[in-house]
Amino acid sequence: MNNPAHTDKPLLDAIAKRWSPRAFSEREPTDDELELVFEAARWAPSCFNDQPWQYIVVRRGEPEYADAVAGLVAANQAWAGGAPVLGYSLARRAFSQTGKPNPHAWHDLGAASALLSIQAASIGMMVHQMAGIVADVVRERFAVPDELDVVAGLAIGWPGDPEQLPENYRARELAPRSRKDRAEMLVRFK
Amino acid sequence: MNNPAHTDKPLLDAIAKRWSPRAFSEREPTDDELELVFEAARWAPSCFNDQPWQYIVVRRGEPEYADAVAGLVAANQAWAGGAPVLGYSLARRAFSQTGKPNPHAWHDLGAASALLSIQAASIGMMVHQMAGIVADVVRERFAVPDELDVVAGLAIGWPGDPEQLPENYRARELAPRSRKDRAEMLVRFK
Repeated sequence: MNNPAHTDKPLLDAIAKRWSPRAFSEREPTDDELELVFEAARWAPSCFNDQPWQYIVVRRGEPEYADAVAGLVAANQAWAGGAPVLGYSLARRAFSQTGKPNPHAWHDLGAASALLSIQAASIGMMVHQMAGIVADVVRERFAVPDELDVVAGLAIGWPGDPEQLPENYRARELAPRSRKDRAEMLVRFK
Repeated sequence: MNNPAHTDKPLLDAIAKRWSPRAFSEREPTDDELELVFEAARWAPSCFNDQPWQYIVVRRGEPEYADAVAGLVAANQAWAGGAPVLGYSLARRAFSQTGKPNPHAWHDLGAASALLSIQAASIGMMVHQMAGIVADVVRERFAVPDELDVVAGLAIGWPGDPEQLPENYRARELAPRSRKDRAEMLVRFK
């Protein structure tokens, strides 16, 4: 299934069709496909080119998959707990070179994750990011060093049949995607 | 001039060719081109679909352009102070619906700005984001409400001739783009 953006502008196809499904098919990404997606993140811009992003990526079937599921809040486990790939995005709070705080670490991680989501969408693979995680559980299960923030979860795979979802998620999966008007984004306050 | 990513993966062309020039040509984006670019940002994913991003966009020649230049640190004024379009990205710190703090506001703004940069690159237009801004000056000159963080500056236009840059920036403009190895991004700590 697809759920493209409702736009009358000639957006890049991968930007228009990227969305965040909850139902995933059984198809497993190949190593090449995952490497392609994270290569896109690698080329994101960042403050001082610090590249403050890191990712934990776990395939269904790996021993650590249960740990990855445990890091999600229950409401997300309900649909993401069987996704072909689960991941967590991490932000390094201090600049590598100077050790000073990097206020743009989360911003730049957001850029990297956006690029990987677009690259994924270009081959039909979708990335559903989740704020609904238990960062402390992720930190403990994956021994994440203190200098990294655990920022978001990622469920990765090809969209599947909404019928496989718990009932309360089915209608949402099919609902048209919505956004505020563009005029609300482009502002002048005086 | 171009400065593409050095990648052996078949990245989306717009992701591979996106970069952050300092030299801009005289070409002015049309309204259509700017709308296209911000339409891409509009469709970024965000926590609770809150869309915590806003943008101030000023064209060279508008009365507010001097205010936009004033919001940059001197080192950025030196090259960006004449860009065809200058902008600032803003993040709403609290969720619209609940008023509770949104820890992902900067992260989600980063995603939106990444999407607009990729959409721009798809038509050859480049967006150079800058952390080097004076947020208080931007807030004052543009009367930015307190509930919004001023996060980054944006210089927007088509790449120009590096010879027009101050001498200390010329070599940097031509230097190959570099990133850490992909293996440093994809981590397992145990």
